[in-house]
Amino acid sequence: MAPAPHEMAGTTREHAEALDAADDLAPFRSRFRLPDGTIYLDGNSLGPPSDAVDAALASLREQWEADLVTGWDRWLSLPLTVGDALGAGVLGASAGRVAVADSTTINLYKAVAAALSRQPTRSVVVLDRASFPTDRYIVAQLASDVRAVPVDEIASSLDYRVAVVVASAVDYRTAALAPLEAITEAAHRAGALVVWDLSHAAGAVPLYLDEWDVDFAVGCTYKYLNAVPGAPAYLYVTERLHDVRQPIPGWFGHVDQFAMEDTYRPASGIARFLTGTPNVPGTVAVEAGVRTVAEAGIDRIRAKNIALTELAIARADELGLDVASPREATTRGSHVAVRHADAAELCAALVAAGVVCDFRPPDIVRLGFSSLYTRYVDAWDGVTACAAHR
Amino acid sequence: MAPAPHEMAGTTREHAEALDAADDLAPFRSRFRLPDGTIYLDGNSLGPPSDAVDAALASLREQWEADLVTGWDRWLSLPLTVGDALGAGVLGASAGRVAVADSTTINLYKAVAAALSRQPTRSVVVLDRASFPTDRYIVAQLASDVRAVPVDEIASSLDYRVAVVVASAVDYRTAALAPLEAITEAAHRAGALVVWDLSHAAGAVPLYLDEWDVDFAVGCTYKYLNAVPGAPAYLYVTERLHDVRQPIPGWFGHVDQFAMEDTYRPASGIARFLTGTPNVPGTVAVEAGVRTVAEAGIDRIRAKNIALTELAIARADELGLDVASPREATTRGSHVAVRHADAAELCAALVAAGVVCDFRPPDIVRLGFSSLYTRYVDAWDGVTACAAHR
Repeated sequence: MAPAPHEMAGTTREHAEALDAADDLAPFRSRFRLPDGTIYLDGNSLGPPSDAVDAALASLREQWEADLVTGWDRWLSLPLTVGDALGAGVLGASAGRVAVADSTTINLYKAVAAALSRQPTRSVVVLDRASFPTDRYIVAQLASDVRAVPVDEIASSLDYRVAVVVASAVDYRTAALAPLEAITEAAHRAGALVVWDLSHAAGAVPLYLDEWDVDFAVGCTYKYLNAVPGAPAYLYVTERLHDVRQPIPGWFGHVDQFAMEDTYRPASGIARFLTGTPNVPGTVAVEAGVRTVAEAGIDRIRAKNIALTELAIARADELGLDVASPREATTRGSHVAVRHADAAELCAALVAAGVVCDFRPPDIVRLGFSSLYTRYVDAWDGVTACAAHR
Repeated sequence: MAPAPHEMAGTTREHAEALDAADDLAPFRSRFRLPDGTIYLDGNSLGPPSDAVDAALASLREQWEADLVTGWDRWLSLPLTVGDALGAGVLGASAGRVAVADSTTINLYKAVAAALSRQPTRSVVVLDRASFPTDRYIVAQLASDVRAVPVDEIASSLDYRVAVVVASAVDYRTAALAPLEAITEAAHRAGALVVWDLSHAAGAVPLYLDEWDVDFAVGCTYKYLNAVPGAPAYLYVTERLHDVRQPIPGWFGHVDQFAMEDTYRPASGIARFLTGTPNVPGTVAVEAGVRTVAEAGIDRIRAKNIALTELAIARADELGLDVASPREATTRGSHVAVRHADAAELCAALVAAGVVCDFRPPDIVRLGFSSLYTRYVDAWDGVTACAAHR
């Protein structure tokens, strides 16, 4: 008997199983703690627990008991040492350009304010219209004049009045991957600075912030980097902007923190972007999460998540689902958006059936794939369930 | 043989032992993990691990594994529910006035900016000259005109130009306890708002923020509240100021967070002071730490730390140490400052000898006492060691 068309397209479950059997990242799955019977397709929102993070937190707990307050001798530097590890393993950033601290929103506030302070004769911020809401709120708070445009119109929106471009590397709804290098270059040609939100990209797609000459970038660590819920975010600042002032000076950004000086004198380098006492457990969790991503290697991670999303889209197509993500793999992140009129209800039904995904208004069900633990059969089964519950 | 004078004053070690034997808070010590052979007198900087915090973190770890991203259904409200518990058990604040999030510095930035925005015709900030450095940096960043004065001159420094008073409840160096109610009342009479930093007070001295009509307060949770290193700080805002705008709007402060609206509409109440994703492990640790303080009761805690600091000062006096803390117990927090020309070296020698304390420039050794686990013999031995190493 001849194979059915969708079998010819390679979306049988057997084919998915064969892809899993041949997957050289498959052994990483056993390092993560995923409940039996759950198909977890929301690691793009929150990664699962892992042995590496458990071990890091247990080690910190031992340090705290043994060293008490003197533990700060090693913890004080964590925002910068873990920033360096994140830069080297995930962001394409050399040492001294990344701090791990605060939330993504706070870091974006620092970055946008710092960028604007560098552009005293310009007042416009060009904002990626698909930005995550919190990014929009920060830009609206800080900029007197905001132009919200689609990502593909950013380049043509630039002129001598544009101070800063704020955009997301991967669209949190559609997974569209922006041309970071081209937009950064266009911004610089127009005399603007760029601030990238990497939340849905870091740990999923290769990033070369130094090479692309990015000015500022921010993002979170509890998605594809698998740190704890609410782990600290990060802020990248290119070296040529290390003399800029950020708006929330605190003792962790002082050049001589424990001199307890009356007057703020900013540290040199990325340290001046720190503010208050760092979230120590969260930061050691980031270190562990980053180490695992670095060990797997971002190129292998990227190759697998392209294959996962390709399989998911092929299966969605044959089941007649409305795929809202880009068709071209190189312009897509690591999740697939399905558009549906009753997306909230569909998502709830899927979660109840053990296929954990999420809803984003007005009409998107997101299916997220993490190369470190998502199997090809999970992608196939998840999309199949999505069609069954619609 | 007649007792020596210092024995008559009650500072024999035997007397300290007798006080421990009669201490009804003594059983709490077994809940904390303190290394053998260490006399820990730096809980005013960082509290030790405890069974309660360990259990809270273990429970969170289970929730994370079982619920993954759907764990947010219960974690989302933690900044406010733990804020309520902190308010009720420690701050004298009714529900809906405290948020647990971000760092003390970030919260101070929000509070001072919000307070200034409420005072459009006034520009001066009166600053407690003894404020912790990070508080000074924030005030200098936000205020165009700063008057730094001693705490006891704040009331006489107030006039129609003063927008905000920023002061510390307990001086981080000397332990001087400010008259919070009187200063708040004086500020209000002059038309100013107050922002209190409670970092060295909360969990050590009774606070009645509602009753005292305090406007804003901030503080940290890893000192007398014994949460994890770098646990989130808190922000108290009195109800009559719940319509003020804070400067860092984020999705956690939006009235309808998951509607993902383009425009920021602040939540009503204390929620509008939230910004980004909360540090979940840190917040559950705060909850556990607060629960323990509330169980012991702030009045018993205060009675014991007065007795501890009285004993320490009596012992310091008889050994000829230079005590820089107030003599009157009701105007003193829960640590004792010893002034010494070579304070840094003295502190290092004490730490090396297993008496953990800390140095604050230029000339202060701080000996901190936490009623939940510091024994009277620790106070006696610690001060004795301080004299021996000077």
